[in-house]
Amino acid sequence: MEKKCIGVGLMGFGVIGSQVGRVLLEREGHISEQAGCHVKLRRIKVIEQDLGTPKTEGIDPALFTTDEDAFFNTPDIDIIVEVIGGVKPALSYHERALKAGKHIVTANKELIAKHGFKLMELAKKHNVGINYEAAVGGGIPLIAPLQKDLVANNIEGIYAIINGTTNYILTRMSLEDIDFAPVLSEAQKLGYAEANPRNDIEGIDAAYKLAIMASLTMETRVRPEDIYCEGISKLESRDFGYASELGYAIKLLAIARNNSDSVEVHVYPAFVPDDSFLAKVDGVYNAVLIEGDLVDKVTFWGEGAGAKPTSSAVVANIIQAARKIACGDTSHSYWKVKPGKKIKPMSEITTRYYIRLNINDMPGALAAIAGVFGDCGISISAALQKEDNIEEKSAEIVIMTHPAKEEAMQAALKELNNLEVVKKINNFIRVEE
Amino acid sequence: MEKKCIGVGLMGFGVIGSQVGRVLLEREGHISEQAGCHVKLRRIKVIEQDLGTPKTEGIDPALFTTDEDAFFNTPDIDIIVEVIGGVKPALSYHERALKAGKHIVTANKELIAKHGFKLMELAKKHNVGINYEAAVGGGIPLIAPLQKDLVANNIEGIYAIINGTTNYILTRMSLEDIDFAPVLSEAQKLGYAEANPRNDIEGIDAAYKLAIMASLTMETRVRPEDIYCEGISKLESRDFGYASELGYAIKLLAIARNNSDSVEVHVYPAFVPDDSFLAKVDGVYNAVLIEGDLVDKVTFWGEGAGAKPTSSAVVANIIQAARKIACGDTSHSYWKVKPGKKIKPMSEITTRYYIRLNINDMPGALAAIAGVFGDCGISISAALQKEDNIEEKSAEIVIMTHPAKEEAMQAALKELNNLEVVKKINNFIRVEE
Repeated sequence: MEKKCIGVGLMGFGVIGSQVGRVLLEREGHISEQAGCHVKLRRIKVIEQDLGTPKTEGIDPALFTTDEDAFFNTPDIDIIVEVIGGVKPALSYHERALKAGKHIVTANKELIAKHGFKLMELAKKHNVGINYEAAVGGGIPLIAPLQKDLVANNIEGIYAIINGTTNYILTRMSLEDIDFAPVLSEAQKLGYAEANPRNDIEGIDAAYKLAIMASLTMETRVRPEDIYCEGISKLESRDFGYASELGYAIKLLAIARNNSDSVEVHVYPAFVPDDSFLAKVDGVYNAVLIEGDLVDKVTFWGEGAGAKPTSSAVVANIIQAARKIACGDTSHSYWKVKPGKKIKPMSEITTRYYIRLNINDMPGALAAIAGVFGDCGISISAALQKEDNIEEKSAEIVIMTHPAKEEAMQAALKELNNLEVVKKINNFIRVEE
Repeated sequence: MEKKCIGVGLMGFGVIGSQVGRVLLEREGHISEQAGCHVKLRRIKVIEQDLGTPKTEGIDPALFTTDEDAFFNTPDIDIIVEVIGGVKPALSYHERALKAGKHIVTANKELIAKHGFKLMELAKKHNVGINYEAAVGGGIPLIAPLQKDLVANNIEGIYAIINGTTNYILTRMSLEDIDFAPVLSEAQKLGYAEANPRNDIEGIDAAYKLAIMASLTMETRVRPEDIYCEGISKLESRDFGYASELGYAIKLLAIARNNSDSVEVHVYPAFVPDDSFLAKVDGVYNAVLIEGDLVDKVTFWGEGAGAKPTSSAVVANIIQAARKIACGDTSHSYWKVKPGKKIKPMSEITTRYYIRLNINDMPGALAAIAGVFGDCGISISAALQKEDNIEEKSAEIVIMTHPAKEEAMQAALKELNNLEVVKKINNFIRVEE
């Protein structure tokens, strides 16, 4: 059955919602032409506080409602656009929409990361689509390339700088030789970090986005809690100095590796070689490197957040969904699971490591430390020792290892802690080549 | 009408064709699953010389034919994949396929750049699609993002490093302080440049790709011959030295700028700021920066050529086309033209310039040169003068200008040539900020 006019209902009228609303209203002609059918915004679900604010100026007041039932009972809505964010009440809105046979377009990373599989099962049952391009990387096309353009490939790996706040902080720390705390508070003043920055700086936001990309491409149910996650608050300016000396940048990486029977997923700060593409991604920008067995490496770079870029992705999804409805295309893309495929435990991951230690500067110190690595089967690729404090007879040592298992590394760290010559393990950071 | 099995006919079995053929045969299950219908390779049109070569090993000989009629008369072919390249005989194959109501997937940049509008008219008449993702940037998703993912935007500009051969040569020249000729001959030995490298080094290949991207996004019929085109053979190692001193890299850029009533399209070597993303694209890699009014800047980076990356794009197009046929989606995307929109003449382009001159080192020389720029209404932003050859009393001067019209710049160059103090205009290169 062909439909000539597709109705859109918009839920949420914050920074992103109001931008999406304006684009839908101001570009109705262009959007309809691209969709091949009339695409019409029919209702906007707002909260009481939004009404009468400058955001609503110039928009027909009859479009707004604060009432959930009035919103869902609006006739002729085919696509529900949810840009509220968070799980509550968004999850119940999604379920209500899907059960009513409505297609969904959303920018809600937390909801899709946590409940994507469940929602897709429901969508499948009601033969509608869930579109979530805007949930990952703002306006950077990522979901569509993974879902369509790179679909001939076996996706082997995803390496992503996918959180602008942390990349801004790391860029500042590396350029200016300052520690984490002052940069964070400046980022907060500039609006690059939220008042409660935990989700960003602890890597939780990046883990949501990684869960979505890995679930889409790696035939495994990857939930945020399956992702080993380390944030950037433990980094010190000294680490950036050593990284630079050794030829590396430090980036918060979200990594997914696809093996035939398992998937590795983790978010952590990592050393990346200075001459690699990811090392060059500075400031609030995002970049996602995708490895496919045919395409080798492709990287997508751009602004990963913000109202306008996000609206670009949301509206593109609306156009695609409208086009499909209009021409009766009922094929939708849902996540698949290959039975038996597992998430690899962190202890089994193999990588290289950087370790920075404070030691008592006494004869045999380096030998004792090197001995621990040897005992744990870890081979050292480089060691730097610098005189630190002659009066206190303490020095700082930096060790770079060859690839080693995380389990062995954790055992080594434990033993190092027990060594008399070791005053403190200042930091240890993984190295991605 | 829903179709359960979609037939594919493959034309061309060279480096790319044989890779596409193998992917279609070896991944038939995966491809069919992604397409939502059985996708079957039914016939391969080869040339006599291909038969019996290692490329054909293990493939059912009945699939091959050297006969055009036998190929086109094969029953149940829905999609024709053309990876022969060039205009003859590919154009006639395309026309024959379209007239027979078959969808096209192609990697043929020259054909689409030169005859895309004509072919799309024919395709429209027969209600079939032309898919050409592989014609631009190998496996890097570019056409689909421009066609779908960024479609809510007004595309304001495209800045592309879209030819691997020239980027490899420029990267070597900038790193190693050597001139063009020896690098080219090495690139030819390594297989990065063809025996007849004209299409690459003169920017013609880049112009084909730019014509396609601009025609797709800027509502104007952009043919390759509409694109002002300068190659890289005029560059000398001294230019890279000055560029570096001034904080720039030199890249061969394909540029399209979208104005409301005109389009600017050109390919030329340009200074790009060292800290820009495009300056960091090294070696045979391609990168395309797209500016949209919502998304701001997004960049796509990867291998722009090669059999495997190209097959990734070709097979993705086959899957999309099959999916559309299978579910009866007859909406196809064709290029649009806005009446009255023109290609801006090169003389009206405004940009900054770098000029390198050899002068007679005599009193008043710089004043005379600066006077010419002043007379032509061009303002100078920086000037470097170095003693070059004391015996011959000649020196080299480098001038950087503020933005100026190409017409004024060409007039200035003419006048400079007439000045007694000017021995030679060694080079002039445009500057993109």
